[in-house]
This record gives sequence, structure tokens and C-alpha cells, in this order.
Amino acid sequence: YAVRINSPQVGANNIVGNIVGDRDIIIKNISKIEEAREGDLTFLYLPAYEKFFPSTKASAILVKPDFNKSRENIAYIEVQNPDFAFFTIIEKYFKPGFNLNGVDSTAYVDPAAVLGENVSLGRNVVISKGCKIGNDVKIYHNSVLFEDVEIGDDTIIFSNVSIREKCKIGKGVIMHSGTVIGSDGFGYSKNAEGVYNKIPQIGNVIVEDDVELGANVTIDRATIGSTVIKKGVKVDNLVQIAHNVIIGENTVIVAQSGISGSSKIGKNCILAGQSGIVGHIELADNVVISAQSGVTKSISKAGQYFGSPAKDHRTALRIEAMVRNLPEYVEKIKELEKEVKDLKNKLLK
Amino acid sequence: YAVRINSPQVGANNIVGNIVGDRDIIIKNISKIEEAREGDLTFLYLPAYEKFFPSTKASAILVKPDFNKSRENIAYIEVQNPDFAFFTIIEKYFKPGFNLNGVDSTAYVDPAAVLGENVSLGRNVVISKGCKIGNDVKIYHNSVLFEDVEIGDDTIIFSNVSIREKCKIGKGVIMHSGTVIGSDGFGYSKNAEGVYNKIPQIGNVIVEDDVELGANVTIDRATIGSTVIKKGVKVDNLVQIAHNVIIGENTVIVAQSGISGSSKIGKNCILAGQSGIVGHIELADNVVISAQSGVTKSISKAGQYFGSPAKDHRTALRIEAMVRNLPEYVEKIKELEKEVKDLKNKLLK
Amino acid sequence: YAVRINSPQVGANNIVGNIVGDRDIIIKNISKIEEAREGDLTFLYLPAYEKFFPSTKASAILVKPDFNKSRENIAYIEVQNPDFAFFTIIEKYFKPGFNLNGVDSTAYVDPAAVLGENVSLGRNVVISKGCKIGNDVKIYHNSVLFEDVEIGDDTIIFSNVSIREKCKIGKGVIMHSGTVIGSDGFGYSKNAEGVYNKIPQIGNVIVEDDVELGANVTIDRATIGSTVIKKGVKVDNLVQIAHNVIIGENTVIVAQSGISGSSKIGKNCILAGQSGIVGHIELADNVVISAQSGVTKSISKAGQYFGSPAKDHRTALRIEAMVRNLPEYVEKIKELEKEVKDLKNKLLK
Repeated sequence: YAVRINSPQVGANNIVGNIVGDRDIIIKNISKIEEAREGDLTFLYLPAYEKFFPSTKASAILVKPDFNKSRENIAYIEVQNPDFAFFTIIEKYFKPGFNLNGVDSTAYVDPAAVLGENVSLGRNVVISKGCKIGNDVKIYHNSVLFEDVEIGDDTIIFSNVSIREKCKIGKGVIMHSGTVIGSDGFGYSKNAEGVYNKIPQIGNVIVEDDVELGANVTIDRATIGSTVIKKGVKVDNLVQIAHNVIIGENTVIVAQSGISGSSKIGKNCILAGQSGIVGHIELADNVVISAQSGVTKSISKAGQYFGSPAKDHRTALRIEAMVRNLPEYVEKIKELEKEVKDLKNKLLK
Repeated sequence: YAVRINSPQVGANNIVGNIVGDRDIIIKNISKIEEAREGDLTFLYLPAYEKFFPSTKASAILVKPDFNKSRENIAYIEVQNPDFAFFTIIEKYFKPGFNLNGVDSTAYVDPAAVLGENVSLGRNVVISKGCKIGNDVKIYHNSVLFEDVEIGDDTIIFSNVSIREKCKIGKGVIMHSGTVIGSDGFGYSKNAEGVYNKIPQIGNVIVEDDVELGANVTIDRATIGSTVIKKGVKVDNLVQIAHNVIIGENTVIVAQSGISGSSKIGKNCILAGQSGIVGHIELADNVVISAQSGVTKSISKAGQYFGSPAKDHRTALRIEAMVRNLPEYVEKIKELEKEVKDLKNKLLK
Repeated sequence: YAVRINSPQVGANNIVGNIVGDRDIIIKNISKIEEAREGDLTFLYLPAYEKFFPSTKASAILVKPDFNKSRENIAYIEVQNPDFAFFTIIEKYFKPGFNLNGVDSTAYVDPAAVLGENVSLGRNVVISKGCKIGNDVKIYHNSVLFEDVEIGDDTIIFSNVSIREKCKIGKGVIMHSGTVIGSDGFGYSKNAEGVYNKIPQIGNVIVEDDVELGANVTIDRATIGSTVIKKGVKVDNLVQIAHNVIIGENTVIVAQSGISGSSKIGKNCILAGQSGIVGHIELADNVVISAQSGVTKSISKAGQYFGSPAKDHRTALRIEAMVRNLPEYVEKIKELEKEVKDLKNKLLK
């Protein structure tokens, strides 16, 4: 993990514009600006972190070209987008490798399952009857695939994951520990005595290519048909996705959000943390739901929404400001009452 | 899975009133109206889905008797309650079977545990000392029962579930993957230095008959005594139930809701998604809490409540409408101020 | 588990002031007041539970000295703090033991891992290459430690836990079932086509001494550097802690709360249930966030805050009261409008 700062490698991917200072530094590691040590490369993109610049021990720093280079004992690498450059360097030189290799002797592969080439299975993994596992798939310790699960090439599944029968996972998917795919949808019919009878949930879950699912996520199988997580969707930890939900391409769902049954979320949406979507509604493409908001009606227009129930951002901000100013308005009402009373008294005289 | 539409079977359970159209269709599968293919049976009960009727490829459809049967190339089955009829048919003909059979050689059963008849244990299951497992129980791969756990007949436990010592699970319970029963309650006493000392949690959890618990649910053991989930309760994914909570019969708790310590929920209640109940309060029977609501006081009267803090539905709706109309009221206050000022000016003249 | 009430043992830790009644009772068990049976010790500290006093079958009860001792067939133990005394007795006489002993034959310990003395590993536990496990550590069934994880002395890890590579867990830590430590932070860079590219998450998680983590908790590894849970922090079930978060000493985080990336929480804070903290902000020491609140800005002053967005407690209460009284204010506005109209009419005459 040693990279010379003047090597052509660092200039790869068009991330380097110009080096100001010692061109012969060797980068041993990368760090946050406030934690950097000698030999580290760091970066500055948020103004809030500039306060750490005078004291950082980093040997090199990625900065925008117009950054005030007030220190001499540090090398500056001028780039248009310091955080993007930084993450590109992580990707290229410091990316973690996952060492799982081969099928562990304690992993179970049913004779009626099909494994692709170069599949790695950790300890106590269970691959049930009818499963089809693509090439270069890694499945970590103690994860369980029920019958007839399909996994596309290059997918990585971490430990203690459960994938129920008939679910289909695409290529290049990353699934973090503790996640449950294909548990039964929450569907019952209530009888006259108030007892809930389970409606069998006979559908499945389809997770398309390049999706990432966080830790301890739950995605329920459809009652009939499929719950679908489309290509490129990113789902954070502890998110709940109910039966028959459809999430559009490249949508981002932040931690602890929940989407109720049969709702359909558009492409390129962002559902911020702890937001909730009721059942049987649709969100258009490019909708952004703020944290902790609750969406109770379909949204047909792109834009930002917040509140519980959610309103469009501008209205919600205006109402929120007014709520904050309620004490002032109440004061005005009291003054008006007094003034009107005075006026009445004067008129009656 | 092929059922003739005119067979007496379809008429079972009094679900069929009358068949209009081709009585000799063979139903091969069942589908949602928008996804149905030839040979499929579908159903229509929500008006929002009628838009799919003209184009559905289903061969038969369950409809209410007064449905406008405008198409000729589809068989209509007239029923009073199309969704109930549909789910009854799923239950009868398409219900998934769970193939786990016998005790896997990698499952561990402590010599001091007792298994009933026809128990099925998946790979790497752990049944600790003192456990008593009823007849026809299925416990899937990598699930763990600590000491002295009891499981009633016909219960099914999916993969990667943990049940801590001394917990008692009833008959006919369904427990989905990743769920944790009997983790320690969150109880500490704080000393003068602000350090929290753990209060040992020596109670247990009792889950009564016919309860269903979703995926990645957490139910803490009682400090002393029992946390109790009564008969017929249905709990969705990622729900948190704290120590010493009691949930009444046939209550439904939707995903990501949380109930704090020692609270008692009545029978036949519904706690909608992401709702929260503070500790040490009681909810009467037949209380409905709307999504994302926060209940901070006991509720002694049946009915619907929402908001954070939660208010009765009517009051909450009225207040919500007023909050939404705040810009209008603020405008009125401004107008009033102006008018009062004008009046004063006129009077002073 | 039988303790004579007059034994000097019960007087240990200065918890006993005076015994009123039969000094020769033998305590066989401890119970909640409403569930106590003969031979049980119980306690009374919340007034709400006094209603159970006349009928409790407990043989002895911990009460404050000034408690009205109206019954004769029960022994009173007078203490200043009945709940503290009760929990001290649980701690001393009724604390659960954890029987895991030795390394199970199905546990895997990589040859390049180091185990301390008296380590207990349950069935199917995985200890990967480079792990260092302290003395007297217990790790329950089906838990997985990835490469280079360090665990301090006396730590207990329950079942189905996953700890990803390079994470460091302190001494005396308790980690409940299903918890995931060190899953990848939720970090992406979005390209011009709206596709999210994963930013490698190469940091780790540090959990300091005496921390307790509930069931199904998720704590993400840092992008670079460490996500840090400091000494004595207590985290309840289903809490989400994002990458690069720092939680100060002895802070308490109640169930289903979430803290977004890079935020820093002070010491001795309390985040109540289902609260949320946005990213890149700081909370001072001794801050209390009420249940379901959403903190959107840094808080530099100790105190209580609530609402979404959160405001200081007093302001929030005042605004909440005004929102509740909105119908009344709207009524007043209407009256004012009418009165002003009347005044205008009179003036115009």
C-alpha cells in the first residue's frame, strides 16, 4: 500500500491536476484530516473541516485549485473534486479484498443445486435443493439459501443472511449480514371473531443487478407475483420493504425507512432515514422524501417532500416556520382582541 | 396445481356464487391482475385495479356479482368477497409446503432436551439442555435455542433465529428469520458518577398459540416475570417489544413499531407502521394507532388515534387541517391587524 | 436460591434499614408485586403499583420507611430506595449464570487466531485469521468474527452475531443476538447518469469497555478511520449507528433510534426511542432527545429537546400546547373578523 505521489498511477482516471510541493512523497495510507499521520494522504472538501488544516500531520492533501496553500510542509494535489479523487484513490489502491476462497467443508450444497465457477462458500452455509449460484459468488459463514434461490455472478453475501425459497438475486449484488430476503408478507384476513387467518404468501423477491442491501434489512416476498428491487438500488441498514413493493432503478433508501405493501417507488428517488411510505401508493421518479417523513398519498411530481403527513418541501417549510412562530401569532391575536375591545368601548361611548 | 374451474372443489367453502362464461377452463396458476397470463385466475376487489381489467390476460377472474362483465374472452366467477375467495383458493390449492424433514446430522440436540414426534431440525440448529420441543415442529437452519426453551406443537421457526433461555413458545406459532426472543431487557441503574450498572434480567418471554412474528423482530425478556405476546397476535418485521410488555389477543403490530417497557396493549388493537408506545402505559382493547404516531399516555377508550404525541383521530385530523391552513390564518391575522389599525385611525380623526 | 430475610447477607451493600414483621421468612424467589406468590420478595417504588399491595401474595416487600404498613401478614423491609435494593438483591442472589464452557468441537478457530485463557465458543462459531480473543470471553452459537477482530477480556457475545474484519471490541462488553458490527458504511458517489458507485469503506468500528449492545443492532464501519462507541455506552435493540459516528461515554441510545454518518454525540446523553440524528452534526454532553424526535442541527447546550425537527424542550412544549389549542385560536380569529366587521359597519353608518 505504498504509492508514490508523483507516479503516473495517481494521475489515473483524470483525477490529478497539479502537484504543489514535494513531488517525491510516498503515500503509505489515507486518513481523515483530523486523524492523519505522517505518510498519509488526506482531502478537504467540506468547509467545516478546514479548521483541521493548520494542524493536520498528513504528508499530502487533495484540495481544490483555489485553496489557500498557507503551509509549506505538506504537498498539495489540486483537483476539481477532492472527495471524488480521494474515493477513486481508495478504490484503486486501498480497496479491501475479501479472502473467502473455495467451498468450506462444513458448507452444505444440495446435490440438486448448481454452482458456477469459482464460487466461495463459508462455514455452515446452506445451499438448498434447486438453487443456482453464478460464477465468482462469495457467500459468507452461516448464511442460508432456501430452495430454488438464484444468485447472479459476482454477488457477495455476508454472514448470517437468510434468503427464502424462489427468490432471485442479480449480478454484482452486495448483501450485508443479518439481512432477510423473502420472509412472508404481512397478510391476513380477519374473521367475524376478530381472529386473523394467514394469507399464504406464494410470490417471491427479485433483487436486480448492482443492488446493495445493508445489514438486518427485511424484504418480504409478494403475496403473489414479486417484490422487486430494481437495478442499482441502494438500501441502508434496518430498512423494511413489504410484500409486492416495487423500487425503481437507482433509488436510495436510507436506514430504518419502511415501505408498506404494494407501493411503487420511482427511479432515482431518495427516501431519507426513518421515513415511511403507506401501502398501495405510487411515487414518481426523482422524488426526495426527507428524514422521518410519512407519505400518505401518491406523489406524481418530482421534488422534495417532508413532514408527517408529507407535504411538498416549500409548503412544509413554510408551515414549519409558522408553527415555530405560533407563540408570536397567538400574542398578536391577544393584542388584536384587546384593541378590538378598546375600539368597541370607544365606539359605545 | 391444475384446478378445473367447474370442479366442485372451487365451490368449496361457499366461495363461489356463479360462473359466467367458459365453465371448462383449467386454472394452472393464480396471479395479480396486471401480471396474469393465460391459464391464470385473478381477482378484482380494489377499484384502483380496475384499470387493468381490459388488458389482463387472465383466463378467469373473481368479481363481485354486480361487476360490469364487458369482456367475453374471460370467465367470471361471481363472489361476494373476491379477495377472500382468492385467498381461500391459494390456501386450498397453492399453499407452499415446507420440505424440512427429519433431524439433520449437523443439528445439535442436547441429551437433556426432549423432542416430540415428527420434529424437523435443519442444519446447525442448536437445541440446548432442558428444551422441550412439541410434535410436528420445524426449526430451520442455524437457529439457536438456549437452555430450557419450550416450543408447542406445529410451530415453525425459520433460519438464523435466536431464542434465549427459559422462553416459552406456544402451538402453531410462525417465527421468521433473524428474530431474537428473550434478549435482555434494557434496564440499568445509574450511579453517582453517571455510570450505568446492568440490572440482571431474570424473567422470560411467553409467546402464546397462533402468534406470527416477522423477520428481525426483537422481544426482550422481562426483568422479572414475563413479557407476554398473547394468542393470535401478529407482529411484522423489525418490531421492538421491550421487557415486561403485554400484548393482548389478536392485536396486530405493523413493521418498525416499538413498545417500551412494562406497557400493556389491549386485545384486537392495531399499531400501524413505525408507531411508538412509551413505557408503563395501558392501551384499551380495540385501539388503533396510526402510522408514525407516538403514544405518550394511557388510552382507556377504543378508537383511532394519531400524531406524535397521539391524539384521538378526530381531534388530530382537525388540528392537522388547521396546521395545513396556518398560512391562511396568518394572512387573516395580518388583515385583521391592518383593519384594526384603519379603524383606530378613523376613530382618532 | 433461598435466602433468609434476617440473614446478614440481605443487609449487604447497605441496602437494608429495618425489618418490620416476621424476621424468619425464607425468600425463595423474587417477583413483580402483581405476580408474587408465597415465599416471594417484591418491592414498591412507583405509586402506580400501590393498588396491588392489598392483594399481593408476596411474603416480604421492600418499601420506603414512611410506607403505610397496613397489612400484618407480610414482612416489610424498609429501605430508602426500594428498586435499587431489589435489583441489588437480584444481582447478588438471582443473577443468571451463562453455562457456555470450553470450545465446542464445531467451532472454527483459524490457526492464525489467538485465544486467551478460559475462552468459551459455542457451536459453529467462526473465529477468522488474525483474531485476538481475550480471557474469559464467551461467544455463543453461530456467531461469526471476520479477520483481525479483537475482543477484550470478559466480553460476552450472544448467538448469530456478525463482527466484520478489523473491528475492536473492548472488555466487559455484552452484545446481544443478531447484532452486526462493521458492515459497510452507506457511502456512494453518484455519476452523471444517476448511477451510484460504492465508496470502499476501509475503516473499522471500535466498541470500548463496558458497552452493552442490544439485539439486531447495526453499527457500520467508518469510510476511513473508526466509528467509535465509547466506554459505558448502552445501546438498545434495532438501533442504527452509521459510519464515522462517535458516541460519548455513558450515553444511552434507546430502541430503534438512528444516528447518521459522521455525527458526534456527547457524554451522558440520552437518545429516547425512535429518535433520529442527521449526519455531520454534534451534540454536547448531557443532551436528552425525546422519543421520535429528529435532530437536524448541532446542539451545543445540555438540556432536553424534542420534536421533528427538534427544539429545546420548553419551546417545543409551548408550541405543542399551541398546536393543540389551534381550534381555539382559529375560533378567536373568526370572532375577531366578525367583531371588526361590525365595528366597520358601525363606523360607516
